[in-house]
Amino acid sequence: MKQPTFLLAPDSFKESMTAKEVCVAMESGLRKAFPDASYIHVPMADGGEGTVQSLVDATGGRMVEKKVSGPLGETVAAKYGIMGDGVTAAIEMASASGIHLVTKETKNPLVTSTYGTGELIKECLDQGIKKIIIGIGGSATNDGGAGMAEALGVKFLDTEGHILPRGGGSLGKLATIDTSELDTRLADVEIIVACDVTNPLCGETGASHVFGPQKGATPEMVLTLDANLANYAAVVKEQLGKDIRDIPGAGAAGGLGAGLLIFTQATLQRGIDIVIEYTGLRSKLALADYCFTGEGGMDFQTKFGKTPYGVAKAAKLEGKKVIALAGYIGEGVEVLYEEGIDAIFGIVPGASDIEKLLAEGPQNVERTCENIGRILKLA
Amino acid sequence: MKQPTFLLAPDSFKESMTAKEVCVAMESGLRKAFPDASYIHVPMADGGEGTVQSLVDATGGRMVEKKVSGPLGETVAAKYGIMGDGVTAAIEMASASGIHLVTKETKNPLVTSTYGTGELIKECLDQGIKKIIIGIGGSATNDGGAGMAEALGVKFLDTEGHILPRGGGSLGKLATIDTSELDTRLADVEIIVACDVTNPLCGETGASHVFGPQKGATPEMVLTLDANLANYAAVVKEQLGKDIRDIPGAGAAGGLGAGLLIFTQATLQRGIDIVIEYTGLRSKLALADYCFTGEGGMDFQTKFGKTPYGVAKAAKLEGKKVIALAGYIGEGVEVLYEEGIDAIFGIVPGASDIEKLLAEGPQNVERTCENIGRILKLA
Repeated sequence: MKQPTFLLAPDSFKESMTAKEVCVAMESGLRKAFPDASYIHVPMADGGEGTVQSLVDATGGRMVEKKVSGPLGETVAAKYGIMGDGVTAAIEMASASGIHLVTKETKNPLVTSTYGTGELIKECLDQGIKKIIIGIGGSATNDGGAGMAEALGVKFLDTEGHILPRGGGSLGKLATIDTSELDTRLADVEIIVACDVTNPLCGETGASHVFGPQKGATPEMVLTLDANLANYAAVVKEQLGKDIRDIPGAGAAGGLGAGLLIFTQATLQRGIDIVIEYTGLRSKLALADYCFTGEGGMDFQTKFGKTPYGVAKAAKLEGKKVIALAGYIGEGVEVLYEEGIDAIFGIVPGASDIEKLLAEGPQNVERTCENIGRILKLA
Repeated sequence: MKQPTFLLAPDSFKESMTAKEVCVAMESGLRKAFPDASYIHVPMADGGEGTVQSLVDATGGRMVEKKVSGPLGETVAAKYGIMGDGVTAAIEMASASGIHLVTKETKNPLVTSTYGTGELIKECLDQGIKKIIIGIGGSATNDGGAGMAEALGVKFLDTEGHILPRGGGSLGKLATIDTSELDTRLADVEIIVACDVTNPLCGETGASHVFGPQKGATPEMVLTLDANLANYAAVVKEQLGKDIRDIPGAGAAGGLGAGLLIFTQATLQRGIDIVIEYTGLRSKLALADYCFTGEGGMDFQTKFGKTPYGVAKAAKLEGKKVIALAGYIGEGVEVLYEEGIDAIFGIVPGASDIEKLLAEGPQNVERTCENIGRILKLA
């Protein structure tokens, strides 16, 4: 019997395993059923946490550390990746401006800024990078990317010509945008923004209303932030001639999506599509018989661009069979059968403490994969 | 493609689903992958709870209710089964003398009695039954089956010829056993005792030491009960010429195993073997392509005569593939691969409250079976 080839392309299982660790556990289990099979590891991500590591791993690149301003102006040691080709960088905005960098007490979207993300972009320019992939999930900010632009030379001024304080709370006073000192190197750098290509900048489904509360905004603050971003969009339209207000994705990461569209050569793409492209997933799928994917939790929302959905779509283009694993199987998961996922298995062995389950993730992935392997041999 | 035949032979998932309900959920899930397959339901049991129902279901028999004495002498409505042939009965001793019939406060193995179980046997004799299968798990008693024998005419007397009070606490004073009025019909009735064929009547591994504490015995009571059963065995040996003290299984159900061996035409068998025989599992397996089994919890102990183990052994004799489901997968479950279980899957969708998991058992069995079915089609 010809030995099968298994492509292992899971996302991380958050708080339990990195995508790479999931790959290892999957192989370890499947090997018990198929000791002589081939295994290809493609640790995945969907633009959120783990995206840079996934791209660096897949291309044989490296991680770099850079000290920048955190969301509240303090110094943070942010990491970004330089991919194997040496001219493409991968950034997660959260590394410089993420929600994990503020506390329950200090989080405040009126003042948090994307300035550090701008510094990371500037660092890439200094390194001679020609293309930047930037994942913009998990932000602590609601500043429309103004902080990011400021780090790259843009000045945001009030009616009296004073530079505005950083943070989304100031943009209501924005009267003039001075781009005369914007870093000219940006013109030659392609920026690909990995984001949910969904939310516009303003309004009910905009950055402030949808994501503001989780960043610490009270209902009154949400209204202020939304009005301020509307003023920002109006000034941009009038002075720079760009109408970004209603572009789907402009509202991602507190409007950083909009900021990148305004001030850089940026395009917005779904995170999972970017990761699929830059990991070379399609060509690796062509070599496989079975594709295994998965994520910490899967439910009907998985089909809105999460890793298992994207991997399944790619696998189906290559005519491959797709099996998914999850630590938590939620409501409506069966819609995924129609999206190309052939079977979905939970890994949890029984009623148990969540801490214990998170700690035992690898052995549960291993056991479940062994048993799936045993069935594949059986049928 | 020829449609497969699935034999569904699970035990109950305790506190969640009867074996019959598990069969229904299994079929419901597998049908989504194999709508035109054939499904054979054989709800199983291993001699414990659910055994009578399983035998009645498999043979097209009926349940009968009979009022008898409970473990503490109160009246209880016990149920037993008459199998499809009309001359074989199935009894669970727990129905008359079970631990669920006493409370934390009233449980006391010094006084609890198997008298009601004897009344059930007498009722079978009255009904013209020729063979009784009796499952003896879950007892509240430690009386060596003396109560059972008393209900059938035996007298247990002290040195002064007085009838002893019921319960294991009195057997230390046993001096004479009078079998002159033992129901003569017992001589023509075959009794098959479904039990763990393991524990002897007395000693460290005997009824009192191993099972006494869970029936409410304090350490002192355990010593008394063990000594009393030893006296009982000695009197039996001397006056009735039967040496039952060290027979494996004699200690089952507080020594009811011994009592049945002493006073009736009984043989002890592993519960699962009896259920396999009387449900006709082997001949049904011959028709199947896949055998599904399972139990609420599975671990290395499953191989000590639990349903999935017995079903797998039977299936392997017919060369069939065996897939098991469990609500809880515990330590060392992988030893079961060598015992004929080809693959084992947990049904739990994620970290969750145990009450919720028990309530959602059917949908979790269904989802898991659907996905196993999807993989079987895939491979």
